[in-house]
Amino acid sequence: MTDKLVLHEFSESGNCYKVRLTAAFVGKPLERREYDILGGETRTPEFIANVNSNGRIPVLQVGDRFIPESNAACYYLAEGSPLVPTDPFDHADMLHWMFWEQYSHEPNIATLRFWMRWLGPDKLSDLQRLQMPTKRTAGNAALKLMDQHLASREWFVGGSISLADVCVFAYTHVAGDADFDLQRYPHVLEWIERIKADPRYIPMDS
Amino acid sequence: MTDKLVLHEFSESGNCYKVRLTAAFVGKPLERREYDILGGETRTPEFIANVNSNGRIPVLQVGDRFIPESNAACYYLAEGSPLVPTDPFDHADMLHWMFWEQYSHEPNIATLRFWMRWLGPDKLSDLQRLQMPTKRTAGNAALKLMDQHLASREWFVGGSISLADVCVFAYTHVAGDADFDLQRYPHVLEWIERIKADPRYIPMDS
Repeated sequence: MTDKLVLHEFSESGNCYKVRLTAAFVGKPLERREYDILGGETRTPEFIANVNSNGRIPVLQVGDRFIPESNAACYYLAEGSPLVPTDPFDHADMLHWMFWEQYSHEPNIATLRFWMRWLGPDKLSDLQRLQMPTKRTAGNAALKLMDQHLASREWFVGGSISLADVCVFAYTHVAGDADFDLQRYPHVLEWIERIKADPRYIPMDS
Repeated sequence: MTDKLVLHEFSESGNCYKVRLTAAFVGKPLERREYDILGGETRTPEFIANVNSNGRIPVLQVGDRFIPESNAACYYLAEGSPLVPTDPFDHADMLHWMFWEQYSHEPNIATLRFWMRWLGPDKLSDLQRLQMPTKRTAGNAALKLMDQHLASREWFVGGSISLADVCVFAYTHVAGDADFDLQRYPHVLEWIERIKADPRYIPMDS
């Protein structure tokens, strides 16, 4: 792969961090371009026409082509590395956790984090405020499911770290930003420490 | 692959149909086991312990192992077939649309369809009722984005049908059940007809 890799991002987003973390684990250099998402910089006609018709970051630019959706970008970077299992069942099980993250984890934990820490309580709409208890319950259910899964295993899939761990880690390790109490999930905490202990690990603010 | 394939499903769910449609496109026989999701049959301790800790269908059973998440199950069935592009960029672009479907399409179009046709207007909570206009707007935005993408191409990725088309098709072709007006999206309608014209196509109620 010789195309230059550029990450279009808002660096405090866990979805963007997971792409950087994947790149670090597979040793690929990324250029970074930061966007002011609260200022609408990813909803301009130029961004919509040239980077992502869906108006969202992250987007991984590969030469002059673009891959939206964080987990698809991670897969592109990690393909052919030990982060992507070659056994067909393990590979599908990795995708299972990546789809689960985007459906059952991110819309609860990441959305609450964004609402509470970036939008701020005063700027929430009534509808957002009303959704908060449901998202709190669903976010804790996601963490509990992770804790039960990790009670008997070190990694989400198979016997070693995979893209499933990297993708689920991104918003889990900052769930405290949205007032989730990770102390309730001891196996999740141990798994977080295992990932942080990897010499290839980079923190979110790096 | 010699393991028996069993689909744990609610057959009127688009997420379940997309697994059957993928199986039809790649010529793999599936056994089917139907669940009464409104009656809570996927939330029993037995189902949680043995089939899917997340309490949801579809789940693809492969021998004595289980793959939750519809798009992961589709990938397992289609791996190695022409539905999964081998070019790394096209492969990531296919995953992009599959993640987009689960994040920006299904939670709007499929959820409204479920609320309106299965739960029924009288059984909706106040919070569900309040979310309906937002989901209506987001669902139409998803259909518009598809229409623009398909204005200049026959298939979502590359030059032939891929898993991206199959996965996005499932809830799109029944969006009318949730009172979305597909006549507003002529390129989507043409793409629906292209998929239905494939000799391997099976309808949702088959």
